Amino acid sequence: MTQHTASWPVAGWAKHYNSQVLMNDLVAAIIVAIMLIPQSLAYAMLAGLPPEVGLYASIFPLIAYALLGTSSTLSVGPVAITSLMTAAALAEVAEQGTGTYLSGAITLAALSGVMLLAFGVLRLGFLANFLSHTVVSAFITASAIIIALSQVRHLLGVEAGGDNVFELLHGIGLHASDTNFFTLSIGAGVLLFLFAVRARGARVLSGLGLSTHSAELVAKAAPVAGVMVTILFVVGLGLAERDVEIVGAIPSGLPAFAMPVFSMELAQALFIPAALISIIGYVESISVGRTLGARKRERVNSNRELIGLGAANLASAFSGALPVTGGFSRSVVNFDAGAATQAASIYTAILIALVSLFLTPLLYYLPKATLAATIIVAVLSLIDLSIIKKTWRFSRGDWLAVMITMLVTLGFGVETGVSCGVLTSLGLHLYRTSQPHIAEVGLVEGTEHFRNVRRYKVRTVPEILTLRVDESLFFANASYLEDQVFKQIYHHDPITHVVLMCSAVNEIDYSALEVLEELNRQLREQGLFLHLSEVKGPVLDRLRGTEFMEHLTGCIYLSQHQAYSDLCKRYRY
Amino acid sequence: MTQHTASWPVAGWAKHYNSQVLMNDLVAAIIVAIMLIPQSLAYAMLAGLPPEVGLYASIFPLIAYALLGTSSTLSVGPVAITSLMTAAALAEVAEQGTGTYLSGAITLAALSGVMLLAFGVLRLGFLANFLSHTVVSAFITASAIIIALSQVRHLLGVEAGGDNVFELLHGIGLHASDTNFFTLSIGAGVLLFLFAVRARGARVLSGLGLSTHSAELVAKAAPVAGVMVTILFVVGLGLAERDVEIVGAIPSGLPAFAMPVFSMELAQALFIPAALISIIGYVESISVGRTLGARKRERVNSNRELIGLGAANLASAFSGALPVTGGFSRSVVNFDAGAATQAASIYTAILIALVSLFLTPLLYYLPKATLAATIIVAVLSLIDLSIIKKTWRFSRGDWLAVMITMLVTLGFGVETGVSCGVLTSLGLHLYRTSQPHIAEVGLVEGTEHFRNVRRYKVRTVPEILTLRVDESLFFANASYLEDQVFKQIYHHDPITHVVLMCSAVNEIDYSALEVLEELNRQLREQGLFLHLSEVKGPVLDRLRGTEFMEHLTGCIYLSQHQAYSDLCKRYRY
Repeated sequence: MTQHTASWPVAGWAKHYNSQVLMNDLVAAIIVAIMLIPQSLAYAMLAGLPPEVGLYASIFPLIAYALLGTSSTLSVGPVAITSLMTAAALAEVAEQGTGTYLSGAITLAALSGVMLLAFGVLRLGFLANFLSHTVVSAFITASAIIIALSQVRHLLGVEAGGDNVFELLHGIGLHASDTNFFTLSIGAGVLLFLFAVRARGARVLSGLGLSTHSAELVAKAAPVAGVMVTILFVVGLGLAERDVEIVGAIPSGLPAFAMPVFSMELAQALFIPAALISIIGYVESISVGRTLGARKRERVNSNRELIGLGAANLASAFSGALPVTGGFSRSVVNFDAGAATQAASIYTAILIALVSLFLTPLLYYLPKATLAATIIVAVLSLIDLSIIKKTWRFSRGDWLAVMITMLVTLGFGVETGVSCGVLTSLGLHLYRTSQPHIAEVGLVEGTEHFRNVRRYKVRTVPEILTLRVDESLFFANASYLEDQVFKQIYHHDPITHVVLMCSAVNEIDYSALEVLEELNRQLREQGLFLHLSEVKGPVLDRLRGTEFMEHLTGCIYLSQHQAYSDLCKRYRY
Repeated sequence: MTQHTASWPVAGWAKHYNSQVLMNDLVAAIIVAIMLIPQSLAYAMLAGLPPEVGLYASIFPLIAYALLGTSSTLSVGPVAITSLMTAAALAEVAEQGTGTYLSGAITLAALSGVMLLAFGVLRLGFLANFLSHTVVSAFITASAIIIALSQVRHLLGVEAGGDNVFELLHGIGLHASDTNFFTLSIGAGVLLFLFAVRARGARVLSGLGLSTHSAELVAKAAPVAGVMVTILFVVGLGLAERDVEIVGAIPSGLPAFAMPVFSMELAQALFIPAALISIIGYVESISVGRTLGARKRERVNSNRELIGLGAANLASAFSGALPVTGGFSRSVVNFDAGAATQAASIYTAILIALVSLFLTPLLYYLPKATLAATIIVAVLSLIDLSIIKKTWRFSRGDWLAVMITMLVTLGFGVETGVSCGVLTSLGLHLYRTSQPHIAEVGLVEGTEHFRNVRRYKVRTVPEILTLRVDESLFFANASYLEDQVFKQIYHHDPITHVVLMCSAVNEIDYSALEVLEELNRQLREQGLFLHLSEVKGPVLDRLRGTEFMEHLTGCIYLSQHQAYSDLCKRYRY
């Protein structure tokens, strides 16, 4: 419990608000809003939902996060990975376009909101640490590949669905011959344009006299330019009559902010997917928040973030929309555009609300191929295959985790992939922590130091086995210690004394105490003595008065050197 | 992969078998069989199954374990806790006495067998370490209380079921007035007799001229004496006509060794219960095996044990019986009776088979109250409430885990209790390992040693922050390190150099490497330098060539003292 817990994050920034901060926030809000319009529509499409749902997810959730979240620059809304996960979860319960499908999305947002809030209130943010970031990166890379492939059909103007790369490639191969030339032209054009802007846009703009910083920001508006130009093309050339798929009518107005209606059946079916979406959304969001926060010397509180994101998801559910989280690219834009406080997000929300109210008719002729191209360019930046090579060089265990997560995600879809990633993370963690480093040590001649017999030339005595335990002892690793002791004893016969050097043992739990007791008892039955050395103060305090200390056959030595010389004397070494 | 993996355990003992070993094994087999007869019947009753099922579970499973298990003295069969868990699992899917109920028991044994075998083959025995033994003890104590209470109805001769203490006490209170006087007399008589034998039996027998050792073994046969005497009473006094519940007809013969018939639906419903029964059964069995093994300098191989127990459970399923595991009391008797090899269990199985073939008619008039009294006396020795006091004294975290597990088991039944215990174990583990010990250290004047600033009077320099990390760095604790570094920086302003003293860091995984990279980047943005000291050889090898090393703003020092003096020089201290 820190002192900060009591104060609302909003109180922190509202107190010092002034006109300069207002100006900074407003500029950032406009830039982010321009970027968010095509993104919101695109990610709603990715999730298989009507376009207005994407806009709705970019209004109240932003306000909820601004009031409760701790990052001043995190920009919340629908993002690529969670939208794909939403689509994958909903594919199991309903057909796209049905009322159940939309209810499913709302249920996911609501469940996700409740889960995140509960974890925040219970201060369980630390649990996110058990999802290995390496595994998350592998998952994101594989998901981005799936997302990009899933959009190819919109570029070609054909029907070809699927959850994994096999299904997607098969569908594309099957339907490629039905490609609509106009759709492909628009899609390829936007794709080339966006790539060109990404590669050279900022340089060209600064050549036109803009400062480097402004040029970079303006270049981020490229998708909006793509949207406007392709709408004009479709209208001008009458391409809608040529079977170019367009977004169509988007209802004008604000989301009805209403208590979401629940079907218990749907909630049960979507419970696990909601949990996975929450985990991935939270992990990504907190890492964005931390990265940006560090640049401003701003600490992001993980439990507060859970509450902020939980509230944002509940707000999304109340708006009739899909799960949201903090997005990387838009948060970076928000940061670069100079957002000073969470108020920037509130202004962004107001701008998106204005778009929903007044500008949706303009989007009628927006070709879906444009949105698909926007999505592809956005997610390609998420693909990082270098992690395969880097982990291979660094450690085979990490590499294996990366490959498992990536291949399962590509081959079996995101749901199986992320579940598998979570399990791989936990498995790795359990495996690593259950086998503490335990070294047999000996005396470095001429000193009082004891070092690993495998690495140093040291002196040992056949009757004495000294093991240094390099970790705190608790239930998950205590039996491993027991095993190691017995393995050593069975190998070297003349051993009479076993000394555990506890210099790195910061804590002992009750299960480990029982193991030590048992070890002492078993050694005694074989006529061996158990000694401890270099036991830390707090550990010794705890051991005092336990049965283990009463029954201990050997001594507790302050230093290993003392243990060694005392025991050596008995054998006249 | 050890060398032992290739050889079958049976090859180890069969090679040196001779007549002396045969005699020892035979004597032990007879004593264990005498003890097993009432136990098998009683635990079948506890599981809600017909009595012959208990006998069937004590034939082929013993042979399967003898051939594949690694403990020479472990005695496998139905045991109290897993029988109670079987009853609890089956209560959810069928009524006692129906065909589905028996199919359910067989399905549990089969699932349990397959799971244990799979874990053994995949060498995942180490996973059992993640179930805290403290939590298991608490669970066993609470289960034993439930078992004892569940048998009271048989002592009173009334109908009163229930899954938890509330239901059981309520049922007993409701029906106590229907108590059958004869049943109660038999039950109370056997109960008193068994307690008396336990308290003084061995002493009385050795007073009659038996050796202490023999007296103790003979005293273990008390339940069989109870069985015989009460059968005579029931027959002699015609108590069966007085509504004293008796075991009734037990079909003579051997189990039909046949492939169990599966219903997928039943298998799905019982999957989780089977997993829980397997975990608890395995953990208890391995701890019995290890305890006894240590007395004979015999190593129990955990993966081999999984295979042995898995085969025993499959054998039980093929025999049409319930889940089995290694029992504590009968294994101790087997050990004390001098069993030298696994062959003792094979002889026991043959004896039980003979009982099934020829002696079951004699058990017709056996009162259920006798079996209930046997169960109560057996499980009371499992109750260890002292663990509450011991853990309270030792550590509040362990105490909390004990209380949660105990109260949930008592209040909500064994299934919820054991699930809760497993989760508590994992939660504790995750929590403990995610927060490594990190200490700010300073120089002990006049030495080259660096110690915790909170415990020692040491010298520090305002511009230098030195943190000693007392654990290997990996994904689950790396962000905690990052948090700690920033917390320290925000508190002390003049810091320019952060030194991580890595003397206890044995390993760094890829996620932790990324965190270090990010930490370095963030510190650089704030104008701070990151240094490492006392990095171990293997860790340094791994770090070489990574981007982290390329971008590191500071140096890597061989010793902390070198880091300290070098940095101090820059500030002319």
